[in-house]
Amino acid sequence: MSEELKELAIIGTGIAGVSASIYAKRAGLDFFLFDHQVVGGQLLLMEAVDNYPGLEVGTRGAELAEKLDLTLEVLGVKPIKKKVTKIEFVDNHVQLDSHHSKYRAKSAIIATGASFKKLGVEGEDDFLGKGVSYCAICDGFFFRDKEVVVVGGGNTAAEEALYLSNICKKVYLIHRGHRLRAIEYLQKKLSEKENIQILFNTQVRNISGKDLMEKVTIENTHHQQRRPLVVQGVFVSIGIRPSTDIFRDVVAMDDHGFILTNEEMRTSADQIWACGDCRKRPLRQLVTAASEGAIAALSVYHYIKGSYISA
Amino acid sequence: MSEELKELAIIGTGIAGVSASIYAKRAGLDFFLFDHQVVGGQLLLMEAVDNYPGLEVGTRGAELAEKLDLTLEVLGVKPIKKKVTKIEFVDNHVQLDSHHSKYRAKSAIIATGASFKKLGVEGEDDFLGKGVSYCAICDGFFFRDKEVVVVGGGNTAAEEALYLSNICKKVYLIHRGHRLRAIEYLQKKLSEKENIQILFNTQVRNISGKDLMEKVTIENTHHQQRRPLVVQGVFVSIGIRPSTDIFRDVVAMDDHGFILTNEEMRTSADQIWACGDCRKRPLRQLVTAASEGAIAALSVYHYIKGSYISA
Repeated sequence: MSEELKELAIIGTGIAGVSASIYAKRAGLDFFLFDHQVVGGQLLLMEAVDNYPGLEVGTRGAELAEKLDLTLEVLGVKPIKKKVTKIEFVDNHVQLDSHHSKYRAKSAIIATGASFKKLGVEGEDDFLGKGVSYCAICDGFFFRDKEVVVVGGGNTAAEEALYLSNICKKVYLIHRGHRLRAIEYLQKKLSEKENIQILFNTQVRNISGKDLMEKVTIENTHHQQRRPLVVQGVFVSIGIRPSTDIFRDVVAMDDHGFILTNEEMRTSADQIWACGDCRKRPLRQLVTAASEGAIAALSVYHYIKGSYISA
Repeated sequence: MSEELKELAIIGTGIAGVSASIYAKRAGLDFFLFDHQVVGGQLLLMEAVDNYPGLEVGTRGAELAEKLDLTLEVLGVKPIKKKVTKIEFVDNHVQLDSHHSKYRAKSAIIATGASFKKLGVEGEDDFLGKGVSYCAICDGFFFRDKEVVVVGGGNTAAEEALYLSNICKKVYLIHRGHRLRAIEYLQKKLSEKENIQILFNTQVRNISGKDLMEKVTIENTHHQQRRPLVVQGVFVSIGIRPSTDIFRDVVAMDDHGFILTNEEMRTSADQIWACGDCRKRPLRQLVTAASEGAIAALSVYHYIKGSYISA
C-alpha cells in the first residue's frame, strides 16, 4: 500500500479524464490521476479538430492535447504515469493495482476511452487526417461534394454512409461480405439514396496518394481481381473497442464492453463513475466527453461531500 | 411569410446555440439561426473562463465569444439578428414570428439561455469578475483560502456555501430572512461546517474596493445598522431565470420555467428540442451546454433524415 487514502481516483487522461480532473481539482477534491500514455488520448490521432466549440477551426488534435496538459499543470494536477491493471473493492474502498503498487480511494472515475479498429492496410496510417478517418460526424464536412468510401457492413457503417451522402457527391459503401449486417431499416434507407453505391464481396487493399490520399485499391474477394477507385476519403467503420477489460467484473457493461451509466455518469457499482468513450453513449464526440467528465466529477463531489440535492 | 421552409430553426447564440449550429451545419442541415443579441450570450459577462477543457486558463469570456463568432463565420452560418417573439405549430411545421416576419421550419432548437438575478446594489456590476460571481462551481477556485460571502437563503445558496467551504477559509451566508428556505438536510450540513457563518436578517448594501473588491457593507434588516465586512468575494445566489416565456404554451417546463427534455434534448413537443441554460439540467456549465447543443443538433439530424438507430 504505497499511498494515503484519497477521495477519488481518475483513470485516463483523454479529454474526459482531464475534464473530470479540472472539475475535481476546482471542487477541492483530493485525487489520483492515472495516465499511462500521454495526456490527450485519441486526440493525438486527430489531424484537425473542427467541431469543438470554442476551438479555432483547424486546430490540430495534438495542440488541443497540449492545452489540456498545460491546464493540468496550471491547476497543479500531476498525473501518475502508470497503467492501472486491476480494480477491486477492499474495506469499502476502491483499490487500484498498478506496477506492484496499490492505491486506495473512496471513489473512482473510469475514463479509459476506446480505440477504433483499423483495416491494417498500406497507407492507412500515412493518410490519417489526409483522407483517412474513423468518424464521419467529426470529419465528413471536409469532404463536401467529394467522393468517399465507407468500409464496413454494420449499423454504424450504414449510418456513416447515410450521413455522408448528405454532404458528399458520392459514397461507396464497401463490404467484404455478400450482405450487410445493418438492420433492415437502414438498408432500405441506403437503397433510396442515389449517390450511395454498395460494393459487396469487396475489400480495400491499400490507400495511396501524394500529400493527400487519391485512391484506394479494392479487391473482389471471390476472384481476387484488383482495381483502383478514385476517392478523396476513406471512412473506416469496422468497429470500436472500449478499453474496459479490467473493469469487466466490477461494473455493468453492454455486449461490446461499453460501461453502462445513468445521466450522472454513475455505474452499477456504488463508488464508480464512467465518462467518455469507454461509456455507452448516444454521441461519441470530444465535447460530449468533456461534458461527461465535468458531470462525473461533480457527481463524485456530491457523493463525497454529501451535499447533493436532486434539483 | 418571408422565407422558404427550412429543416431547422435554432434560437439563441450562446454556446449551446452555437454548438448546435456547428453540428447542424456540418451534418448538412439547412437552418435558420436567430440571434437577437450578440454571439456568446452570458459569456460576455464572464471575466475569465477557467473550467472549459481545452481553453487556456484565464481566457476572457468575451474572447471565447469571439471564437464562437468566428467559427460561425468560417462555417458560413449567418445569424438572423432578430428576436423571436412567438412560436407555434402551423401545418405540421414550426412557425416563428419575428419583427413582422414569419419563418417556417420542420424543427426547432431552443437555446435561449437564462440570466442570474442581481442584487441591484452599488458595486455589483463594477466588480463582476473582480470578486463578484454568480456561480461557485465556475469561480470558487479563485478564492482558495480567502473569505467570501454567499447571498441567498435557498437550496442553491446553501449548496454554494457548502461547496465554497471546502475551498475558502471562511464563508458568510447572508440571508435577509430569519431562517433559510433550504431543505433541512442542507441546513444540517451548513451547521456542521466550522468555517460557515450564517448571518440572518441581513442584506448586502454595497460592494466596494479598488481594482478588486475589498469589502461589502451589510445592514441588519431590523435596526438598519450598517457595518463593513471584509471579504474577497461575493457569490450572488438569489435565483436564475430561464428566458423561456414565449415557449410556455408550447413545451413542458418545471415550476421555474426550465424546459424539460430527455437525454437527447427532446422536449414534450414533437418537433422541438432544447439545450443549455434554458433547460432543466443537473450541471449548469459552459461545457455541458456545448455538449447539449451538439446532442440536440444530431438528434434533429436523425429526426429530419430518418436514419436514427437507438444504439
